[in-house]
This record gives sequence, C-alpha cells and structure tokens, in this order.
Amino acid sequence: MEMTTTAAKQGAQNRPPTSAPEWRVTVPEGASVTVEQHEASRTARAWAWLVSLLRLALMRDNRVVGLGRRVWRIGADDPRRAVHGLKVGLALALVSVFYYTRPLYDGVGGAAMWAVLTVVVVFEYTVGGCVYKGLNRAIATASATVVALGVHWIASKSGDKLEPFIRSGSVFLLAAMATFSRFIPAVKARFDYGVTIFILTYSLVAVSGYRVGALVAMAQQRVSTIAIGVSICVATCALICPVWAGQELHRATARNMDKLAAAVESIVDDYFSASAAAAADKPSPTPASNRAAAKAIEGYIRCVLNSKASEDAQANLARWEPPHGQFGFRHPYAQYRNVGAAMRHCAYCVEALAACCVRSASSAGTTAQPGHLAGACTRVAALCGRVLREASGSVAEMATSGALDLAVADMSDAVRELQDDLRALPPSALLVLDEAAQLFTVTSLLIEVSARIEGVVDAVDTLARLANFKPADDEKPAESAAKVEVEP
Amino acid sequence: MEMTTTAAKQGAQNRPPTSAPEWRVTVPEGASVTVEQHEASRTARAWAWLVSLLRLALMRDNRVVGLGRRVWRIGADDPRRAVHGLKVGLALALVSVFYYTRPLYDGVGGAAMWAVLTVVVVFEYTVGGCVYKGLNRAIATASATVVALGVHWIASKSGDKLEPFIRSGSVFLLAAMATFSRFIPAVKARFDYGVTIFILTYSLVAVSGYRVGALVAMAQQRVSTIAIGVSICVATCALICPVWAGQELHRATARNMDKLAAAVESIVDDYFSASAAAAADKPSPTPASNRAAAKAIEGYIRCVLNSKASEDAQANLARWEPPHGQFGFRHPYAQYRNVGAAMRHCAYCVEALAACCVRSASSAGTTAQPGHLAGACTRVAALCGRVLREASGSVAEMATSGALDLAVADMSDAVRELQDDLRALPPSALLVLDEAAQLFTVTSLLIEVSARIEGVVDAVDTLARLANFKPADDEKPAESAAKVEVEP
Repeated sequence: MEMTTTAAKQGAQNRPPTSAPEWRVTVPEGASVTVEQHEASRTARAWAWLVSLLRLALMRDNRVVGLGRRVWRIGADDPRRAVHGLKVGLALALVSVFYYTRPLYDGVGGAAMWAVLTVVVVFEYTVGGCVYKGLNRAIATASATVVALGVHWIASKSGDKLEPFIRSGSVFLLAAMATFSRFIPAVKARFDYGVTIFILTYSLVAVSGYRVGALVAMAQQRVSTIAIGVSICVATCALICPVWAGQELHRATARNMDKLAAAVESIVDDYFSASAAAAADKPSPTPASNRAAAKAIEGYIRCVLNSKASEDAQANLARWEPPHGQFGFRHPYAQYRNVGAAMRHCAYCVEALAACCVRSASSAGTTAQPGHLAGACTRVAALCGRVLREASGSVAEMATSGALDLAVADMSDAVRELQDDLRALPPSALLVLDEAAQLFTVTSLLIEVSARIEGVVDAVDTLARLANFKPADDEKPAESAAKVEVEP
Repeated sequence: MEMTTTAAKQGAQNRPPTSAPEWRVTVPEGASVTVEQHEASRTARAWAWLVSLLRLALMRDNRVVGLGRRVWRIGADDPRRAVHGLKVGLALALVSVFYYTRPLYDGVGGAAMWAVLTVVVVFEYTVGGCVYKGLNRAIATASATVVALGVHWIASKSGDKLEPFIRSGSVFLLAAMATFSRFIPAVKARFDYGVTIFILTYSLVAVSGYRVGALVAMAQQRVSTIAIGVSICVATCALICPVWAGQELHRATARNMDKLAAAVESIVDDYFSASAAAAADKPSPTPASNRAAAKAIEGYIRCVLNSKASEDAQANLARWEPPHGQFGFRHPYAQYRNVGAAMRHCAYCVEALAACCVRSASSAGTTAQPGHLAGACTRVAALCGRVLREASGSVAEMATSGALDLAVADMSDAVRELQDDLRALPPSALLVLDEAAQLFTVTSLLIEVSARIEGVVDAVDTLARLANFKPADDEKPAESAAKVEVEP
C-alpha cells in the first residue's frame, strides 16, 4: 500500500501543467518546415500523448497499479510463464524471417499464412501440448486431404448432376460423424484437436476449386508449410527452457503428498496440543494463530482436492512427450492419475478430520482429557506423515525406498496400538460423553486416514514397478525411523 | 453378448466364398464396353469391396461391435450429442451454399476460406461456448487489425531501415505480452480464445504485404466474412435444439443435490438396518447386495466430488448467453459455483461417513447395539435428505420454498436431540468400546454433515436472492414434513 500511494503522489507531482504542455513544438509562423521536421514533431506529439495517457491512468486510481502488481506476481511466481511468452514471440519471429528470406512467400492467403497460423495455434506451454497439437494438426491435415481428394475424384467422375450433392453431402456427413466422435472419451482425450482440423481441412478442400492437379499441388504445399510451422514450434518449445508436462505431473504428485503429510501432522498436533494447554491451564494459542494454522491446513488439503483437472490434462499431454531425462519411453503417466486418485481419496478423510478437530476446538473450548490416546494418536499421525513423506521422496527421486516399507509397518503397529488403547480406555475417560465422542471420532478418522494412506502407498508401489524405479542406494531405515520416534 | 455372437455367426454365414466372389462383373471377352458400363462396374466393385471389408472387420473380432455399441450408447444416453453433430454439418453446408451462390467466392485462400474456418472452429456444443468463441474471434480480429494497421502506418513512415525492425519487433513484443496475459486468471476465463486470435491476426497482418490501402480492403472483407461465419454458427446453435450452458449448470446443480440426499439417507439406513438385522438375528443383506448398495452410494458421491471442472467451465460459458427462458439478463451463474463448492464440502464428509459405515459393517460384522441412537441418527439422516431435496426442488423450479426453512429447523432440532441422546447414553452402551467408537464416529460425522448441509442451504438462499426466485405458490409444509416423519 505504501508503494501505491507513493507512486500516485509522484504521478501527481510529475503531471505537466495543462496550460503549457512541455511537448508542444512551437513553429514560428511562416517558417518553412521540412517534411522530416513535420514527421518528427508528429512522432514526438504521439509519444507525449501516450506518456500522458499512461500517467493519467496511473493517477486516476490505483487499480492499474494493483493489476500491474498482480500480473508481476504471476510472472515472479513462475518465471517460466514469462519465458513462455518470449518463446512464442521468438517462434513467430523465426517463422516470419523464414518466409521473408524464401521465394515461397506470396502475401497473406499464400503458404506463409499457414505457417504463421500453425505457430500461433500449436504453440503450447508444455512440450507435450505442443507435440500433441502439432502431430494432430499435421496428421489430420494429411489424412483429411487424402480423403477429400478421394471424394473429389469420385465426385468428378459422377457427372454434373450428382457432383454438388456428393460434395455437400460428404461435408455434411463427415462433419457430423467427426463432431459426434469427439464425445467418445478416448477420442476426446487424444484426438480432440485433430478431429477439428480434419473437419476444417476436409471442408476447405471439398468446398474449393475443381481441378485435381492444382489441388494436389496446393495440398502438398499446405502440408509442407504446416510441417515447417510445427517443427519450429516443437523445436522452440523443447529446446529453450522446456516445460515437460510429465515432469510437472511428477513434481505435483510428490508435492501434493508432502502437503497431505503436513496437513495430517499439523491437524492432530494442533488438536492435542490445544487440549494439553487447556488441561494444564496454560495459555492456549490465540484464536488468530489458530485461524492461521487452520487456513494453512485448509490450503494444503484444497491443493490435493482440486488437483484432478490439472492432473488429467497433464497425464493426457505427457503421453505425447519424447523420452527426456529420467522419463523413458512409455513412462506410465496414467499411473500418476491413480496415485492422485488415492491421494484425493485420503484427502476427503483428512478434510473431515480437520473439520472435526477444528469444530471441537471451537465448540467445547478444548477437551479436558488430553492424556487418553493423545500419545498414540500423535504417534499415528506422525507416522502417517512419515509414510507420506517417504512415498513422496521415493516418487521425487524415482527410487524405491526400504524406509517406506518400514514406515508402513511402523504405522500399522501404531494403529494397532491405538486400537488397543481405545479398547482399554478407563471408564473415567467416558464421563463426559460429548468429549468422548469427539475423541473417538478423531481416532476413528485417523485410523481411516492411515488405511487410505496405505492405498496411496500401494499406488506408489505400482508406479515404482511400472516405471522401473531404481533401488535405493543407501538404506538408512534406522536413522529415519529414529527421527520421528514419538513417546507412545 | 448374445447379439454379438449372433452377428458374428451371420457374418460367417454371409461370407462369400473367396473362390467365386459374387461381385465380380464378368465381361465377355471382346465385347464392346461403353464408358458408362465401365464406370458402373467400377463403382459396384468399390462398393462391394467396402462391404466385404466391413464384414471382415465385423467377423475378425467383436471389438468393432463392442466399440459400435459403446458409441451408440453415447448417442442414446444423450441424443443432443448426435443432434450437435448434425448441426455442425448443417452449419458447414449452409456456409458453403452461401458462398457457392455469391460472387465473393474465389477459391481456397479467398474470403470463403475464412467463413468455413470460422464455422468449424467457433461451433461449440453449448450456445454459451459458441457465443464466447464467436465474439472473441470477431472482436479480437477487429481490434488486432486496427492495432496492426496503426503499427503498419508507423512502420511505413519510419524509413526502410527501421521498418523491418518495427514489424518483427512489434510481432515479438505483442505476441509475448498477449501470451503472457493468458496466465492471468480473469483473462484465461473470459478471453483465452480471443488472445490467440489477436496474436494470429496481428501476426498475419504485420507479416503481410506493404500497401495500407489493400490491407484495409482485405481486413474489411476478412472481418465481414468472419461476422457471417459467426452469425451462421450462433444462429444454428441457438435456434435448432439449443443446449444452454446455464441450463446444464442449473440442472446439474439440482441433480447433484438429489444425489447427495440419496447418499446420506442410504448410508445411514444401510448401517442401522444391518445393525438391527444382526441384533435380531435376522438374515442380514447378502454381501453382494451390500456391495451393490455401496457402489451406488459411491457413484452418487463421486458425481458430486468430480463436478468442479465441468461446473467451472459451464459457469464461464453461461455468462456469454443471452437471456433465455427463466434465465434472465445477468443471471448469477457465478453463485452456482459457490453452491457446488458447498456441496463438495458436504460430500467430503459424506464420503468419510460412508467409509466408516462400510468399514464397521465389514470389520466387526455389525454393531450389536442398534437401539442406542439408531432412531435419532436415522431421523437426522432422513431430515438431511429432506433438506437437500427441498433445496434441490427450490433450485430446479426457481422458487423459494417455505418447506425448506421448516425442514432446516426440523433438522436442527433432530441434531440437538441426537446430541442430547448422545450425552444421555447409558453406561451399558459403552461396554464394548470398539463399537461405541464406531457409533460415536458415525454420529459425529452425521452432525458435521448436517452442519455442512446448512452451508449448502445458505448458498442456495443467496442464489435465490440474487436470481430473484419467485415465491412458492403452494406452501404445504405440513404434508411434506409428515412424509418423512420418522419415529424418534
């Protein structure tokens, strides 16, 4: 806010007095003005007009500054976005240079247009998106041209009367069928763009002129132009700071697992530490810090819950990417969706757990019986967190982890202990039934969460098998197990 | 499966013996064959070849039949999809007829191309999608042309040396900035397609020829052609069996509310009826029927949980739709997203509730103490269901419902009774701590679900206020309250 007001003040100070604009070029009356001078004054005037317009906009209200800052943050959060913009500009500049320097060029409507069009439409943020659109465009154009030439040939042989019917009828039929095919999920996921381009190319060729010879030459030129456009796109996209959809998917999966771990740990920790503070009559955390913690947890969980759409999109695009880095040919990108589904399945339960903990903290103040089950619950939560972190590390480093199996075993043991503790609760713990119900709910949900975490681990194991994760080189289960040892 | 094998058998029976293909037209040697006869025989041969290929495909394996049946089901489930295909075909036929009959037409590369291109690219399933793309395309083309002409004029005045730099530099800069702007959420939601078209048009004009006069004429023609294409698209889309994004969103919201209601009711019913059956030593439902019920519940919940992506997309598109039916100008489509978010928030908890009920049913057989809380829980669940159904009905009919407020009050009362019952549980109910924990968990989650349902009702109330739902004409709270009266 400080910066905003300063900028506004500066704008106000720098505003030129309207009575005597500094940019007006005064020309003595009757003096001879050369064309260059006239042009120069015109350019200067236009420039000054732009500058004053900008100042006015900045001064008028701070919305422009606010917008600018938000835009800046979008770029600063992930500089690859700004780089992406520059890459699109570069690809366009490249394709225009390519056509400036070649005799192929014959103005808009000629072949150059198709290369420019291809670059603009095909260039996507990820390499997978670029290859998907490029291949779809190239193959759909080629196949539609072949089909169109075939129908064209049939139409030209079938007499003047039938010809327009065959042409229009085939456009109608093929367009209807192709459009309908986009509702088939498999086609939608892989060839959606290709179907559009197929209809487009077929219609253009079928509606167009009549001589097959000219058509073939044009089709060849069109396909080669599109190939050039696609090559420039894919090269720019994959060679300059490439963004791989597979890598994004991979990182997001590992990151979401970490977030889930943090959420489980902090929910249970907060719940029992608040209880302990209340029981010991210590000052419990302020409502503000509580709210902040709850907000952070909510953010973590929401990241996992809302991950489906981007995960599906990235898995679809990653399939088109060539092998790169640790991602080999036929890397099992589809399995990431299963891991994601398992994580969301777990997150539903974590969300319910968070709600129960927060509600109990706000409604009854805090439970007055922190001793019962607190140790066992905290231990289960810590081990849940450890399992998720180990799984996340295993995914991130693409290495199987011996510590993961150990952590899962520890978690199962801890859950069994918690269940035993639950069965052995002293009757005194059940005096206040309301609070007992809360405690039981938290415990049950925690047990359910740990069961679902095992589901996540299973999905990660399948991923490790399918993707041939390398065996862990240094197995230090003892150390990492000791790290989260919690007094039972 | 029966149909499949029958078809395969028929295929085998009908297969022509390969030694004497029935379609071979035998021409007596030396006989004079007219060109027509020759053509006819060729066509017949091509036709027969197609038929035999189809038969071969049908015979080879049943995958083709299976695929065909799946595709048929996609169309049969929602015939509007097939109609959509026909509409696209019709729009293309219309635009080609329009250009066949007008002197404007001058082959591919001329103006006709842009009309065909526009129709193929702009035609979308929903009216909102069509208007969104059409308006974006038209406005982006017009504005990019104006900007390009301006830069073109500046470049042409700035001398031969500077000119190419200004041209290429402006393409680079504008493309980079426009591409980057697509990462701004507001731009992404409303103008994503327009930004692409802006870059496309600007590049084409900037890269193209040098005379401003010709450019202006071409630009005019281009814009008018695109306008014609967009008009044909929007007219076909909106006048023939229109699919309104707003209506789809509206219906999906009401439907999801009903599904949530069904899920809550059947989860709790199944849980306590299984308990009751076990306690009374009656034959409990078979595992198969249990699984089927669990699967149905899971399906309901998943529908709600996975609704975010389509809801966001439809809300974004619905904004572009003109007033239609009950959906006036500025209908609050954004609020449907809030209702959806509230429903998902509720569904997370319902999912956890379902998991706890299923797990307890499978692990410990069934609880042996159905009497405690069973009545109160079932009553709360039934009232939760009623509230959701009333809310759904209110949304579906766009009418505020007095019964909804009453149902919410009843639900709150039932929850309070349940809480009282919980506090007053006899110590005998807590003998088996394991089972008590399950019962407590189910109860707590049910209470949480009812709290979240109130959130859904709040969102629906806001929607009713924003969308000016008409007041209910017949208020029959007594009757509908009596309908779900459950013995407490």
